[in-house]
Amino acid sequence: MKIGRETTPKTAISTSNADTIVVRGKDLCQDLIGQTSFTDYFLFLLTGQAADETRRRVLDATLVAIAEHGLVPSVQAARMTYAAAPDALQGAVAAGILGCGSVILGASETAGVLLDDIARQVDDGKSLDAAALETVKTLRAERKPIPGYGHPLHKARDPRVNALFSTAREAGADMRYVEIAEAVEKAIPQVIGKDLKLNVSAAIPAVLLGAGFPVKALKGVPILARTASLIAHMLEESEQPCGFALSYQATQNLDYTGAVPAGYKG
Amino acid sequence: MKIGRETTPKTAISTSNADTIVVRGKDLCQDLIGQTSFTDYFLFLLTGQAADETRRRVLDATLVAIAEHGLVPSVQAARMTYAAAPDALQGAVAAGILGCGSVILGASETAGVLLDDIARQVDDGKSLDAAALETVKTLRAERKPIPGYGHPLHKARDPRVNALFSTAREAGADMRYVEIAEAVEKAIPQVIGKDLKLNVSAAIPAVLLGAGFPVKALKGVPILARTASLIAHMLEESEQPCGFALSYQATQNLDYTGAVPAGYKG
Amino acid sequence: MKIGRETTPKTAISTSNADTIVVRGKDLCQDLIGQTSFTDYFLFLLTGQAADETRRRVLDATLVAIAEHGLVPSVQAARMTYAAAPDALQGAVAAGILGCGSVILGASETAGVLLDDIARQVDDGKSLDAAALETVKTLRAERKPIPGYGHPLHKARDPRVNALFSTAREAGADMRYVEIAEAVEKAIPQVIGKDLKLNVSAAIPAVLLGAGFPVKALKGVPILARTASLIAHMLEESEQPCGFALSYQATQNLDYTGAVPAGYKG
Amino acid sequence: MKIGRETTPKTAISTSNADTIVVRGKDLCQDLIGQTSFTDYFLFLLTGQAADETRRRVLDATLVAIAEHGLVPSVQAARMTYAAAPDALQGAVAAGILGCGSVILGASETAGVLLDDIARQVDDGKSLDAAALETVKTLRAERKPIPGYGHPLHKARDPRVNALFSTAREAGADMRYVEIAEAVEKAIPQVIGKDLKLNVSAAIPAVLLGAGFPVKALKGVPILARTASLIAHMLEESEQPCGFALSYQATQNLDYTGAVPAGYKG
Repeated sequence: MKIGRETTPKTAISTSNADTIVVRGKDLCQDLIGQTSFTDYFLFLLTGQAADETRRRVLDATLVAIAEHGLVPSVQAARMTYAAAPDALQGAVAAGILGCGSVILGASETAGVLLDDIARQVDDGKSLDAAALETVKTLRAERKPIPGYGHPLHKARDPRVNALFSTAREAGADMRYVEIAEAVEKAIPQVIGKDLKLNVSAAIPAVLLGAGFPVKALKGVPILARTASLIAHMLEESEQPCGFALSYQATQNLDYTGAVPAGYKG
Repeated sequence: MKIGRETTPKTAISTSNADTIVVRGKDLCQDLIGQTSFTDYFLFLLTGQAADETRRRVLDATLVAIAEHGLVPSVQAARMTYAAAPDALQGAVAAGILGCGSVILGASETAGVLLDDIARQVDDGKSLDAAALETVKTLRAERKPIPGYGHPLHKARDPRVNALFSTAREAGADMRYVEIAEAVEKAIPQVIGKDLKLNVSAAIPAVLLGAGFPVKALKGVPILARTASLIAHMLEESEQPCGFALSYQATQNLDYTGAVPAGYKG
Repeated sequence: MKIGRETTPKTAISTSNADTIVVRGKDLCQDLIGQTSFTDYFLFLLTGQAADETRRRVLDATLVAIAEHGLVPSVQAARMTYAAAPDALQGAVAAGILGCGSVILGASETAGVLLDDIARQVDDGKSLDAAALETVKTLRAERKPIPGYGHPLHKARDPRVNALFSTAREAGADMRYVEIAEAVEKAIPQVIGKDLKLNVSAAIPAVLLGAGFPVKALKGVPILARTASLIAHMLEESEQPCGFALSYQATQNLDYTGAVPAGYKG
Repeated sequence: MKIGRETTPKTAISTSNADTIVVRGKDLCQDLIGQTSFTDYFLFLLTGQAADETRRRVLDATLVAIAEHGLVPSVQAARMTYAAAPDALQGAVAAGILGCGSVILGASETAGVLLDDIARQVDDGKSLDAAALETVKTLRAERKPIPGYGHPLHKARDPRVNALFSTAREAGADMRYVEIAEAVEKAIPQVIGKDLKLNVSAAIPAVLLGAGFPVKALKGVPILARTASLIAHMLEESEQPCGFALSYQATQNLDYTGAVPAGYKG
């Protein structure tokens, strides 16, 4: 069935013949395998440009920062899935990735769009503090959350934030988006009436945008990072299972609020 | 509901309090962010051990080798999914990962188990050639494929194989499993009656096992690698869509073999 | 980790002890198995209310209407996934379901919200034609598509539309939302300048809302229906595979628009 | 890329032109919508044959029996996924379906293969009790579980079993596979030394095979049934969320068994 106008598929990422696999214009086997790190290659796949030292260090830092934080919901979902279907590792990893949504992990992208938007307002002549304040006010008026600020556990600044900012500074990245992120953090108590400190999901775009990472690929960073962690958890699950124990614990205090038939004892 | 004996979940990967995130005994923010590459961190998450230069180079090489090979079925499935559901990048990536199964991409793990099994036979005193020959004969008798040998496009040796073997040699990895893999390649024509050359799915475990990578985590390597490539394809799909064009082309020569109602014109 | 305010999970759908499984206040084994159809049970799970003849007939008709339409993109994605990972039927079905998104299949829900919104405008005293016209104008001004109108193959009215409308009429459903849907169809050429006829995705909410189906569960109808079809396709794929043939055909006219290394011949 | 020998995709399920959608030889809009129940249509999609009253009642009963059993692991995984990614209902349902694996829900298929195998032994002249006993002994010797027997909650016979058996009897289904299932139940204590009573996963194939349902489609029954339940849970999750409360409770007694940095207080 013809859906949309385009009928000829096009791609600029890769082609191949029997002897050569071409990726973004390079010969995979001659130019890339053994000569580039996986992090550099991820950037190269995304942009077609070779990474420099600054980009690589910043991207590595963000991938390391967001990969693992214990038995968070997506990891629990994946471990329960693996316990039920241990023959299909790919299914358990997929279940975990499906939890990278707008509420959890997806905030890296929405926070990035926010920072980028403030940057453009400043380019147009507004002061940074005014642009930040107005942006927070608008979100508040629309009853939307401030993506990348506040954390259920880390009430002071999420400790990953400073680690990322230091890395970016040392790596020589443009610190402009970090300054924007901090201006938003400063504006929040004036509008919301309480502190919501920077968390890792705003810090990731703050450092990546300063290293030239494309805004539209930001959501891929937590997805790729979390995949590494999910694989490690599935390896542990295969050796020391806890998927069913998690689901058992989860319902120990379950409150059934529906009706029961006459004579039923819970 | 209590399923299985265990009711208390256990993990050795990560714990945290409000100030510190612990991963495998290290402080994530003090010891890891900005100081370790994503590839090293993947190994560390899996094993709790720091990577050395040999391991890192070999693991990087395998991740780069298997990430991208054009519009293979899993990438097509993901691009079609993204075209239908562009709001959920995670869903499109998950659909692509679900195609890392026993037939495609999953062969890295089954090939690794095969090489490991031959290694143990050699440890028990059998000659390498005899062990390889017998293993191929057994698979043949059971009408099973030889995982990691033969490729639909690369009829001579998959070009990624030599690139991986060279990298492993230069990085100082133990070449034992490479020798085993080549012994199997040599045995195949004697049993099958035709050449099935080493492909990337046998080369990956051959070099990784020689660098101390855990057998049980082998299937994670193509899954993690492919995730990077899927994200790049979804970025391209968002800018230059081809998911629906692929599905249109796919059915241009579709043969409908069922019945039709009276008077129906196809 | 505590995310959000609520720490005690609650549900009103089901509870059980060693002898009895309670669903929505009924004893599953005494009151439901053998006494209710799957379609009725789906409604009962969603709403806690028993289906009447009208609701059942309308819901059955919509599930039958949307389940199957040949090798559409989500079915292709699922068949490619099954071909690559035949051991995990659940993964292939999941891949297919992931293609029920905002562009494909998800329109049932957005169209339902649209019809519901017009109904409320009419309740507030506006004429049906004015409310329909204004709604189409607003969508047009926001450069949004009209969900549930136009079809890549069925340029005249999608044939499923009349079949659903007749069934609803015969089953005694409230035809109010059907009239709204037709008012929108009439308004479209005045605003857009060309006919975009009703398709199945607007007809489904038009008949379901008139049978008391909850708006918020509308997206579940194509998902459940498509699952039945995906299972049938996976059974066929296991007996007469075409997943890889589809991916082969899809790239026969692929246009590689990227660079190649010196000397590369495609 | 050409994978496998076949390059022309074939299907016998559906074709269409601008006016007519053909499914299994029928005109969807003339012959099926409004005239067939969803359960009948599922059978028709799978087999191309119209359901009779016996088949429909038995299939309805099994779909109703297996759809819902409270906050089981797959439902928890789906609710956590929905809480994290509420914009993508299809992703949450997919995550739940991914938990229909070899350990949970998938047993319907493996139990069906078992019953079918015993039936063939009886056809070949063995007594039912001997065939059942031998089959259990073989599984025991291979240290495999007996699929469809024993249940974590329902230690006496799973109450769904008798409900399904009564329905099959009343519907006039062939009770042969029910007798086989009961022969296995009788053999188990002689081999295992303890009672493992029939559970729903053996009862489903026992009644379905007696109603002519194809063995190879058995795994689709719990997948389709569970999809209906998952949609109901996601509707509840959207109105009264508990996904994050489940993940909070799940880790209240989590035992971290790894190392911590000097000075870390948990």
